[in-house]
Amino acid sequence: MSIITLTTDMGLRDHYVGVLKGAIYRHYPEARIIDLSHQVKSFYVPEAAMIVRNSYPDFPKGTVHLIGVSPNRTDRINHLAVEFRGQYFIGADNGMFPLIFDRAPTKIVDLSLITQTATSSIFPSRDIFAVAATHLAKGGIMEILGRPADIINEKTAFVPVIDGRTIRGIAIHVDVYGNIITNVDRTLFNTVGQGRPFEIRFRKEQHVINRVYDSYADVPHGEKMALFGASGLLEIAINRSNASLLLGVKHEDVISITFQ
Amino acid sequence: MSIITLTTDMGLRDHYVGVLKGAIYRHYPEARIIDLSHQVKSFYVPEAAMIVRNSYPDFPKGTVHLIGVSPNRTDRINHLAVEFRGQYFIGADNGMFPLIFDRAPTKIVDLSLITQTATSSIFPSRDIFAVAATHLAKGGIMEILGRPADIINEKTAFVPVIDGRTIRGIAIHVDVYGNIITNVDRTLFNTVGQGRPFEIRFRKEQHVINRVYDSYADVPHGEKMALFGASGLLEIAINRSNASLLLGVKHEDVISITFQ
Amino acid sequence: MSIITLTTDMGLRDHYVGVLKGAIYRHYPEARIIDLSHQVKSFYVPEAAMIVRNSYPDFPKGTVHLIGVSPNRTDRINHLAVEFRGQYFIGADNGMFPLIFDRAPTKIVDLSLITQTATSSIFPSRDIFAVAATHLAKGGIMEILGRPADIINEKTAFVPVIDGRTIRGIAIHVDVYGNIITNVDRTLFNTVGQGRPFEIRFRKEQHVINRVYDSYADVPHGEKMALFGASGLLEIAINRSNASLLLGVKHEDVISITFQ
Repeated sequence: MSIITLTTDMGLRDHYVGVLKGAIYRHYPEARIIDLSHQVKSFYVPEAAMIVRNSYPDFPKGTVHLIGVSPNRTDRINHLAVEFRGQYFIGADNGMFPLIFDRAPTKIVDLSLITQTATSSIFPSRDIFAVAATHLAKGGIMEILGRPADIINEKTAFVPVIDGRTIRGIAIHVDVYGNIITNVDRTLFNTVGQGRPFEIRFRKEQHVINRVYDSYADVPHGEKMALFGASGLLEIAINRSNASLLLGVKHEDVISITFQ
Repeated sequence: MSIITLTTDMGLRDHYVGVLKGAIYRHYPEARIIDLSHQVKSFYVPEAAMIVRNSYPDFPKGTVHLIGVSPNRTDRINHLAVEFRGQYFIGADNGMFPLIFDRAPTKIVDLSLITQTATSSIFPSRDIFAVAATHLAKGGIMEILGRPADIINEKTAFVPVIDGRTIRGIAIHVDVYGNIITNVDRTLFNTVGQGRPFEIRFRKEQHVINRVYDSYADVPHGEKMALFGASGLLEIAINRSNASLLLGVKHEDVISITFQ
Repeated sequence: MSIITLTTDMGLRDHYVGVLKGAIYRHYPEARIIDLSHQVKSFYVPEAAMIVRNSYPDFPKGTVHLIGVSPNRTDRINHLAVEFRGQYFIGADNGMFPLIFDRAPTKIVDLSLITQTATSSIFPSRDIFAVAATHLAKGGIMEILGRPADIINEKTAFVPVIDGRTIRGIAIHVDVYGNIITNVDRTLFNTVGQGRPFEIRFRKEQHVINRVYDSYADVPHGEKMALFGASGLLEIAINRSNASLLLGVKHEDVISITFQ
């Protein structure tokens, strides 16, 4: 089994996702295609990166993640295929890759050889990424796709900052339940915190939380709480209510954790 | 072929549905996954029940329906797998099961043995339900999942009431076309009605309908009508218009049928 | 491999699409189902036609396109299966077919033999179209479905008009990025234009464009442009911005191209 996941900003109203899937099946009829999201905010790379980062640990080795957000190639932005922890990530080097990986990837190639033989490149997800993705999903080697390359673009505004005993992160996503997902992961929290007591502050320090629970159900209905979500990122939530709405926390608001 | 259907309130914007599907394919690569809806109102159990109830008769024997709405286990709410009319239904005993079944199920087990071996339970649809669903979809027996159990929770507010020669139901769903779907099914209608003339009243008895048609196309465009929908539930509709909007009928409004 | 694509106005909130897919798998477990869109505006035939027209060239020979928009059969509207360029198109003769095909189809049959044996016809996409679609996807012949037939209904308001050296089209769709897709295709443009200079005018002739680019990335961010989209239809776009919003062009607005 080879899974190809799709993360795009194409929405579900137009035919673009259907055409992309048609291209994937044409190159590889046995592919298992899984939609992660097609409702990334238009051109908004950090959200696409968050979705892929939160999802890939749940997929088996060999899975290929096609990321069709801001996919155009320019002088400064290359098309890349990246191997990381036994899985593959395909998209444009538009700043998203450093937000997905928490350490250096195993291997990186550009898609120059795919581009040379493509008959069109107006729809890169279909014309370039689908070809590369199905090649890798079938077990093909990366060297066929292009030349060795590097990730050169970064969106530093979306990486948490460590300032002494404080981690300063942001709300990178508000999910369908109103849970506020930050860009601070459990590893960073534990490394900086070393088990010391802490205060999580947000909404201009108006709200304070000083404990992390294991599950939403560990607090009474309606109480605010913090936990590490299914994918290891710190979340602010309210059991069975909409934390974003009730606490007034929006996308890209600052959330700080100060350890004693 | 084994079909696993999914009914959740996870929406399609986040990666949760993708991760759930990844888990299902990991346990059972040949699964055929069909989305019934991922846009159930957050935590709203009666809508999830209505969707599953209206869908299961169209699926073959052996189909497994995974219902990921209000999925958390508590002291009073168990995780269950239920066999009914040759199909399987998996979810939390949060009150939804009595709204799906119109008679006693064949067999019920809890998911205690799955829970014991699960490495996580923070995301029950992925960590518990997907394991149980793929086991059953592969033809496994129910006894492997847990102990014999009972459905103990019920949402009586969503069951139609019979009051002499009147059935009092509610609008449990307004569909994409504006059709108003009630919780009154053809069997109940025929049992109470015995073929007698009737008046369907709604919107504070302002609207009256005294005939049930076979198809939307049986009345002129723009005329209000009643019919039994594809799944046997009584609907109020307007041929090629939005009945909910034009008649001012909303979700959970009362609809009564009085027989002579 | 046999692909069945789906284009409907059923939305994704209700269970209708799930039930339709269940019926397709029941008739043909090996089917590969691809959603083109389920978010066509209710009953809006020209949008369904545009989606199918823009998608089918990307699919392999033998693909079956099931179109479940305004699917009801009446005295003047027949259910049809149409063979065109080696692919199949199934739906009601409600005016959509002439908007999909740019020349006469190879073969047309009605679905009268399917209808005779169907146990229900309340949900034509499931009860009639799914049966016809799976028959063709399995390689079955068209004659089994019904009698030879003709396309008789047309929506002339949605066909571009040629007026001397001017083509007068309309915006038939605004996509998720705000790109404005017209009903003027490259063939018509070239046939009328014969390579002469031109002016594309829209929004009461307030906006003028006199060049067609190859790709969105060929102009600076924020500049308005025209190009032939992935499917050969003329589009008005703004690189990385929402052209519909910024230029004030809406669905069904007139767009004219005048050649010197």
